[in-house]
Amino acid sequence: MTAVPPTARPSDPAPHPVHALGGSVTPDDFKAVFRGHPGGVAVITAEGPDGPVALTATSVSSVSVDPPLLVFSVTAASSAAPAISAASTIVVHLLDADDIVVARTAATSGIDRFADRTSWTRLATGEPVFTGVRAWLRCAVVNRMEAGGSTVIAAHALQSHVNRDIEAGTVGNALVYHNRVWHRLGEHSALD
Amino acid sequence: MTAVPPTARPSDPAPHPVHALGGSVTPDDFKAVFRGHPGGVAVITAEGPDGPVALTATSVSSVSVDPPLLVFSVTAASSAAPAISAASTIVVHLLDADDIVVARTAATSGIDRFADRTSWTRLATGEPVFTGVRAWLRCAVVNRMEAGGSTVIAAHALQSHVNRDIEAGTVGNALVYHNRVWHRLGEHSALD
Repeated sequence: MTAVPPTARPSDPAPHPVHALGGSVTPDDFKAVFRGHPGGVAVITAEGPDGPVALTATSVSSVSVDPPLLVFSVTAASSAAPAISAASTIVVHLLDADDIVVARTAATSGIDRFADRTSWTRLATGEPVFTGVRAWLRCAVVNRMEAGGSTVIAAHALQSHVNRDIEAGTVGNALVYHNRVWHRLGEHSALD
Repeated sequence: MTAVPPTARPSDPAPHPVHALGGSVTPDDFKAVFRGHPGGVAVITAEGPDGPVALTATSVSSVSVDPPLLVFSVTAASSAAPAISAASTIVVHLLDADDIVVARTAATSGIDRFADRTSWTRLATGEPVFTGVRAWLRCAVVNRMEAGGSTVIAAHALQSHVNRDIEAGTVGNALVYHNRVWHRLGEHSALD
């Protein structure tokens, strides 16, 4: 995971070494800050050398709509990380609260995340896709940036599919992960 | 904003041109997918050439805890974008629902985001900081990646401050932005 896969184009130089920055934020300090930071929930899949892989990520965000670009990061902690980091195309599934089973499954280590053969299929282009989720994007990886053993990946959306649209101005049924708890957004959580 | 500022180190080559990818996702398609994707709320500040600047972002995520690295993206649409993108150090404020005024202020264009002189101060190192928010990190920008006119920025935390800690396993009082509506997380929004 720390090595740039052969298909990647060159990354930026490595970040400044820690000692050169004079920083004093410990891992525990940093975790305390991010413990209070919630995130929307995505599942990212790819076809790896040993079959389909999936991981749950709260780091997906939209970067640009024209061209349609998103970014996310992958940490080495996930068993799916090497295959996702090396893939040239991936599927980014953006989930709502109805997709909690898919979210939990892709977040659980040590299980076969594709055991339920009714929950997924393969696109004509070969990538695995969980068919019932709110929305998904098939993407080409267009850029990678190494950061502390993790990989930040920029991807260009090639194909989109929305199963459950959300109208502008409505609160919908979004899924959020925060401090190891799943939450559902709705009228009950909206601030005026 | 589209130009890499002089202090940046070289970015990766530009993404593949759209026509080479065979993509057919329109800006409206892409917006429909991300309309349902919520995000935690951060305010990012820097000292620009014309004084302090601030913007509200839902793209901040933790990438690595050791070293302590985060990533976010800045779109050219914000007046603060050029100064944030060019800064060598920034402050990333991670907000909770008690910080809704700071979140709204930094998200409103055309106003002086620093008009309330009681809400902020300067660190000894010069960066503006909103002092009352849940938590903030002073960071050094360590890497930049251009993506569709936006800039993806990786930053290394140098200094952290937590005003309101959240204990492991508790639901806290998080702030989420989703489809133009602010939400508060708590027991009322938790699943199971």
